Amino acid sequence: CLFAAGMAYADADLDKAMKDPSNWAAQAGDNQNHRYSTLKQINAGNVNKLQVAWTFSTGVLRGHEGSPLVIGDMMYIHSAFPNNVFAVDLNTQEIVWKHTPKQDDAVIAQMCCDTVNRGLAYGDGKVFLQRADSVLEALDAKTGKVVWSVVNGDPKLGAVNTNAPHVFGDKVITGISGGEWGVRGYITAYDIKTGKQVWRGYSTGPDDEMLMDPEKTMTWTDGKLAPVGKDSSLKTWQGDQWKIGGGTTWGWYSYDKDLNLLYYGSGNPSTWNPAQRPGDNKWSMSIWARDLDTGKVKWIYQMTPHDEWDYDGVNEMILADINVKGKPTKALVHFDRNGFGYTLDRTNGALLVAEKYDPAVNWATHVDMKTGRPEVVAKYSTQHNGPDVNSKGICPAALGSKDQQPAAFDPKTGLFYVPTNHVCMDYEPYEVDYTAGQPYVGATLAMYPAPNSHGGMGNFIAWDAGKGKIVWSKPEKFSVWSGALTTAGDVVFYGTLEGYLKAVSLKDGKELWKFKTPSGIIGNVFTYEHKGKQYVGVYSGIGGWAGIGMAAGLEKDSEGLGAVGGYRDLQKYTNLGGSLTVFAIP
Amino acid sequence: CLFAAGMAYADADLDKAMKDPSNWAAQAGDNQNHRYSTLKQINAGNVNKLQVAWTFSTGVLRGHEGSPLVIGDMMYIHSAFPNNVFAVDLNTQEIVWKHTPKQDDAVIAQMCCDTVNRGLAYGDGKVFLQRADSVLEALDAKTGKVVWSVVNGDPKLGAVNTNAPHVFGDKVITGISGGEWGVRGYITAYDIKTGKQVWRGYSTGPDDEMLMDPEKTMTWTDGKLAPVGKDSSLKTWQGDQWKIGGGTTWGWYSYDKDLNLLYYGSGNPSTWNPAQRPGDNKWSMSIWARDLDTGKVKWIYQMTPHDEWDYDGVNEMILADINVKGKPTKALVHFDRNGFGYTLDRTNGALLVAEKYDPAVNWATHVDMKTGRPEVVAKYSTQHNGPDVNSKGICPAALGSKDQQPAAFDPKTGLFYVPTNHVCMDYEPYEVDYTAGQPYVGATLAMYPAPNSHGGMGNFIAWDAGKGKIVWSKPEKFSVWSGALTTAGDVVFYGTLEGYLKAVSLKDGKELWKFKTPSGIIGNVFTYEHKGKQYVGVYSGIGGWAGIGMAAGLEKDSEGLGAVGGYRDLQKYTNLGGSLTVFAIP
Ligand SMILES: O=C(O)c1cc(C(=O)O)c2c(n1)C(=O)C(=O)c1cc(C(=O)O)[nH]c1-2
Ligand SMILES: O=C(O)c1cc(C(=O)O)c2c(n1)C(=O)C(=O)c1cc(C(=O)O)[nH]c1-2
Repeated sequence: CLFAAGMAYADADLDKAMKDPSNWAAQAGDNQNHRYSTLKQINAGNVNKLQVAWTFSTGVLRGHEGSPLVIGDMMYIHSAFPNNVFAVDLNTQEIVWKHTPKQDDAVIAQMCCDTVNRGLAYGDGKVFLQRADSVLEALDAKTGKVVWSVVNGDPKLGAVNTNAPHVFGDKVITGISGGEWGVRGYITAYDIKTGKQVWRGYSTGPDDEMLMDPEKTMTWTDGKLAPVGKDSSLKTWQGDQWKIGGGTTWGWYSYDKDLNLLYYGSGNPSTWNPAQRPGDNKWSMSIWARDLDTGKVKWIYQMTPHDEWDYDGVNEMILADINVKGKPTKALVHFDRNGFGYTLDRTNGALLVAEKYDPAVNWATHVDMKTGRPEVVAKYSTQHNGPDVNSKGICPAALGSKDQQPAAFDPKTGLFYVPTNHVCMDYEPYEVDYTAGQPYVGATLAMYPAPNSHGGMGNFIAWDAGKGKIVWSKPEKFSVWSGALTTAGDVVFYGTLEGYLKAVSLKDGKELWKFKTPSGIIGNVFTYEHKGKQYVGVYSGIGGWAGIGMAAGLEKDSEGLGAVGGYRDLQKYTNLGGSLTVFAIP
Repeated sequence: CLFAAGMAYADADLDKAMKDPSNWAAQAGDNQNHRYSTLKQINAGNVNKLQVAWTFSTGVLRGHEGSPLVIGDMMYIHSAFPNNVFAVDLNTQEIVWKHTPKQDDAVIAQMCCDTVNRGLAYGDGKVFLQRADSVLEALDAKTGKVVWSVVNGDPKLGAVNTNAPHVFGDKVITGISGGEWGVRGYITAYDIKTGKQVWRGYSTGPDDEMLMDPEKTMTWTDGKLAPVGKDSSLKTWQGDQWKIGGGTTWGWYSYDKDLNLLYYGSGNPSTWNPAQRPGDNKWSMSIWARDLDTGKVKWIYQMTPHDEWDYDGVNEMILADINVKGKPTKALVHFDRNGFGYTLDRTNGALLVAEKYDPAVNWATHVDMKTGRPEVVAKYSTQHNGPDVNSKGICPAALGSKDQQPAAFDPKTGLFYVPTNHVCMDYEPYEVDYTAGQPYVGATLAMYPAPNSHGGMGNFIAWDAGKGKIVWSKPEKFSVWSGALTTAGDVVFYGTLEGYLKAVSLKDGKELWKFKTPSGIIGNVFTYEHKGKQYVGVYSGIGGWAGIGMAAGLEKDSEGLGAVGGYRDLQKYTNLGGSLTVFAIP
């Protein structure tokens, strides 16, 4: 029953807005991270007629991630740091209000992977902005006035933010960044009305601070689910290392209303020098299912114990009801940085499928389905090879077979459409000291296109999560760093780092249309309907980790943790510049 | 005869490129400042089908003036400070080369009216960039390598640059900015092959430094042309004031090949406090005709003797053969900041027509056709009212009835299409000391829409320069700060500060089409043909004097010499962001 006692009552306002496909009321369009729209005015038959309807510069350079929101006649547009917000009237394209936070520029240097912001949330007549300096603001959707604001983290320690806040029920959920600064990750629920903290759950440390119940929190153990037991995190760290152990939470969150469970991933353990932190480093690199009301952990699954490659586990959890090995399943599907596509039973955390979604992946042979652990290949183990040894040819690179760029689900095909990286690396860890507020990395990297392949750095793929198989794969010159959008029009959209918005057939990946936006695309495609007409839009604005060389003006190959050299060629195709381009069929 | 001895031989390369309407080989498309294209694939009948073909971010915020150049398959795109240049292959939209000058940021503060740059010139296989820091560079058009470079002025004294260099014959012509820093204006011709200075002519001072011949340089005197006489400038200044007397040359230049004459205007005298500089302050505020080979002044005409309003005289001189009062005339048509549209005989400098092109103009009743001098209305005379008195309701404002935004000529209608300002001001001069390298202004201003009119700050008008009459006038909410383009398709294009590119009928100004580009438009519309298809393009990127509040982040009404308050509402419509939008009929 939806209204059982103790269950977070749904935010009626957002629920209503999300049900109307004219709106794009949440970053993924829904709570499940489907990124799917039932609109189909624009479809495989006419998408080649798509034209630019209108455009809007955000006035800010550097990487633009996420997408605007659309609620009724209003579009809410955000920018990279300093995170300006514009409410634009869709009837006139006029700026009804704007919010221009005054943030300390010192925050910029605390952001590992560009000054990105993954967008706003909407609910209860308010627009929520998670600023880079970690202040979470609730703005009146009509006026832009600040209704409440809370300080969510301490940028002086590197605890900054890039994630989009998410509204689920009567709560605003937000995470934290800073895995490269030794920040101890946590996720927090704030009351949507007042901004009062309802609960906070850490990724590492004592059970009570993680909101974990040794007896009731379950995890995949020996081919079945078992309680995590006492001190499941503390036992996997040397001494107090869990206090600076990372496991940040800067990705996308999802919510199953029937189960009242919140899903997300935790990031890499700090430092990147694995020799310095013996143990499994729990619960970094894990999939979390928490009760929305209490934050209590229902189940947890660690994908990459004792990470040696920065295979940060924050990528989105897509909640879809699909056939898994022939059985209708309430699934959670997750494309991890480590190159495995995981399918779990989201009701209990049972591991169902774990297969490579890029054939280049070589650091592990497979995931042992009993233990749930990857079988690491010694040659590519930076722990095994030790500090000050350059382990070469590891696939994927640290930015994974997929990074923050979210995949989309299509209910008709039952497939997942995944923007991927096809990049490998050399990785040399070294000893590093922790100093509060300073980077705590300890590795030198080089990145390059996956060898012996098509020469490009990315693929856009269709994935069968029930079988763990690639259905089709479309090669791309660069990593696809843009979120995908599936539509009932049998088209899937995504952007490229050169700046093309592309429409391809859901069926076979055939390119149906493309358009070159002003800058490279790392934003997520979204769609809405206004006055009976369907629009598709996307931010352009090169940046993010892949574009950090251009965004931050870095020159040396090894800067940006190797991304500067890896993506150097981007500058032949595009320049910085944050703007929105909206398309329609004229 | 074209090849008479002593005549600059034409640059064959540029001449050839300009003759082919597929190219846009010079900032105005030609030497005459017509801004007219014979292309007519896009025309009044189908312009409403225009769509965005491709876009390109320059990676630079702040005001983007001028336009790209197109030569064959290559487009040359420039940006505001730091004046990056991109050669883009029109077949692939890929960046073939880029040039990213390293300029001292200190230059930014020396630029009065935003960090704009009015574009590149082409000739002799080279692309010419006049950098803000006053370095003039010749780049190999194929590789972007610097072929030669010269230092044209001293930014430490405020002598910076915003103008486009112009190639005429075998010379590169460039000017200088800094009228608000007490820079003594000059124009310089450099050898296109070597960058060697051929001649330099000052705007003020001794005859020989102005390249003026007391006997042979003619000026309009008492209803006819007469020699200027000895020391024509020195006599009109107190003591050495001419040395810091302004008369800068930051506008557009034009060239009549048959007459071998170069035309341009000189700017305001420094300071803006007229009481401090008694005399006519010659030859500030003047139209100049110089021999291209020698720089010798053939004739000169001062429009606003002893300026009291900053009616800077640099606006473009359009060279057109039209009927003036029924007589076919080799005319020079000029829309001055002071609100009068001037028509002169460009062969000799005879004054033919001088009429208000905005009915709001009130500072002078008319121009006396015998003396050539305006009849100043005492009430609006800031000299008459004196320092520390606020003279109110002066029309136009200091930025004139038109500023740098160039007009276009249509040979079929014989009319001029003029982007205008419809803005008035309060002006309070005050005593100011000259300090080298410091602003030397001495006035406080407020700006506002012309009272008792349509409430907007601009009009786009059609002008009959033979009669001195407005043919039609289309009101605009803001000043039209974008250069116009006329086409054989019976359409005239211009951009607006809100960001719309508009197409209107040449005949009656009826709006046929508009499109909202990412940012406000202060660039000039251009057109070209590629692979048989006509394209129309324009930079967007709000800024310039009108947009200085947004561009420089200024808040107080009186900042930006009054433009911040005057154009405050712009922020309801647009944000910063430099990009190019190119349109075609799909
Ligand atoms: O560990 C962290 O806290 C953290 C934060 C972020 C971020 O906040 O953007 C990224 C990463 N890690 C990271 O590993 C990563 O690959 C990454 C890519 C991006 C991006 O926006 O392109 N951010 C981040
Ligand atoms: O006196 C000068 O040297 C000087 C320079 C400039 C310039 O270089 O942009 C402008 C002006 N004056 C000026 O008066 C003016 O109205 C103006 C407008 C603009 C512009 O680009 O919007 N520049 C300038």
